[in-house]
Amino acid sequence: MALKLHGLPMSTCTCTVMTCLNEKGADFKLVPVDLFATENKQPSFLAKNPFGLIPVLEDEDLTLFESRAITAYVAEKFKETGHDLIRHENLKDAAMVMVWKEVESQQYHPAICPIVYQYFVAPLRGTTPDQTVIDANLEKLGKVLDVYEARLSNTKYLAGDFYTLADLHHLSYTHYFMKTPWASFINDRPHVKAWWEDISSRPAFQKVAVGMNFGEK
Amino acid sequence: MALKLHGLPMSTCTCTVMTCLNEKGADFKLVPVDLFATENKQPSFLAKNPFGLIPVLEDEDLTLFESRAITAYVAEKFKETGHDLIRHENLKDAAMVMVWKEVESQQYHPAICPIVYQYFVAPLRGTTPDQTVIDANLEKLGKVLDVYEARLSNTKYLAGDFYTLADLHHLSYTHYFMKTPWASFINDRPHVKAWWEDISSRPAFQKVAVGMNFGEK
Repeated sequence: MALKLHGLPMSTCTCTVMTCLNEKGADFKLVPVDLFATENKQPSFLAKNPFGLIPVLEDEDLTLFESRAITAYVAEKFKETGHDLIRHENLKDAAMVMVWKEVESQQYHPAICPIVYQYFVAPLRGTTPDQTVIDANLEKLGKVLDVYEARLSNTKYLAGDFYTLADLHHLSYTHYFMKTPWASFINDRPHVKAWWEDISSRPAFQKVAVGMNFGEK
Repeated sequence: MALKLHGLPMSTCTCTVMTCLNEKGADFKLVPVDLFATENKQPSFLAKNPFGLIPVLEDEDLTLFESRAITAYVAEKFKETGHDLIRHENLKDAAMVMVWKEVESQQYHPAICPIVYQYFVAPLRGTTPDQTVIDANLEKLGKVLDVYEARLSNTKYLAGDFYTLADLHHLSYTHYFMKTPWASFINDRPHVKAWWEDISSRPAFQKVAVGMNFGEK
């Protein structure tokens, strides 16, 4: 039976999971969730994810949420299929994947997420983007990207010379960020720019990126 | 050669890693980092962790940072020793560990961290705790704990009827939180309270908790 992914084609976190599934060539069915009708806050959805967030993956009797947990599961379940996203045969490589996955989660995401939110989501909700929030997070993001620039001058990808979940988890938010006026944060750092062009051109992501038009300006 | 852990006995993230190492009975040496002398911002430390944060684990030629990455590595490396923290022999159980680890990281931590920071750290830095920040995050934390209460009425631990990293990652911050005036957030929810008493009484954490006296009031 095909995997069932509850989410939306323009949602960053849904796209992260879809990109991962595509890397594995896994068969899945996207089941749209009507956020405007607050379908995600109804009992039938809350039974799948008590936090009421998309995406949710159903794999027969297993129901999973939190996008980074879903990608970790998919990468493990299909470890022998498609591109190896966790370096499961080498503990030292795998350890570096763990480190840089956490860097995305604890350093990169907390900086880029509020910028993307203020720029794209706030106007849709009828509020003016808060430039103070944007500026504070651009400063944080710049510092994180300085570390990335140094790292990527030594290795082709974040965890080493191999593409993994540590890179993949950056795709969705950076895709939207590149449509803001601050794309120079990526483009002005040559190694970060080359890395971004490389990872964002992978077919597994390109297939997903065509649907990522949330709040298009 | 023993593992080398750069950190401090009262640091939440160092304690998370020490608790995990204790669960495995792994031999390690704690190397103190003098944060007041900004040792963590010096080139020799930045070469270990470019973000200048503790803890850092050195295992021979491998240098790891980000506490949740280190615990994942330790749990995997010593998977046959001590308590199994990742359910490595059962993919369905392992998937639930992944989900609830991410819940801690993305839902619980962002709410509890600012409260602990405002209550303990702000006064040490000569600033008054910001009650608006505390109140906003108590509200968030309450909602997360409502989900935990429901979950823990069905399973003994977060990922299932087995103690894992998903529980362990809550220990350090909750330990400090229980010393704030808002411990009732845990104590008033019977299943959360029972879970907290269970996980915090494990010898692997008790051994660490004696050193957790940061900003004692």
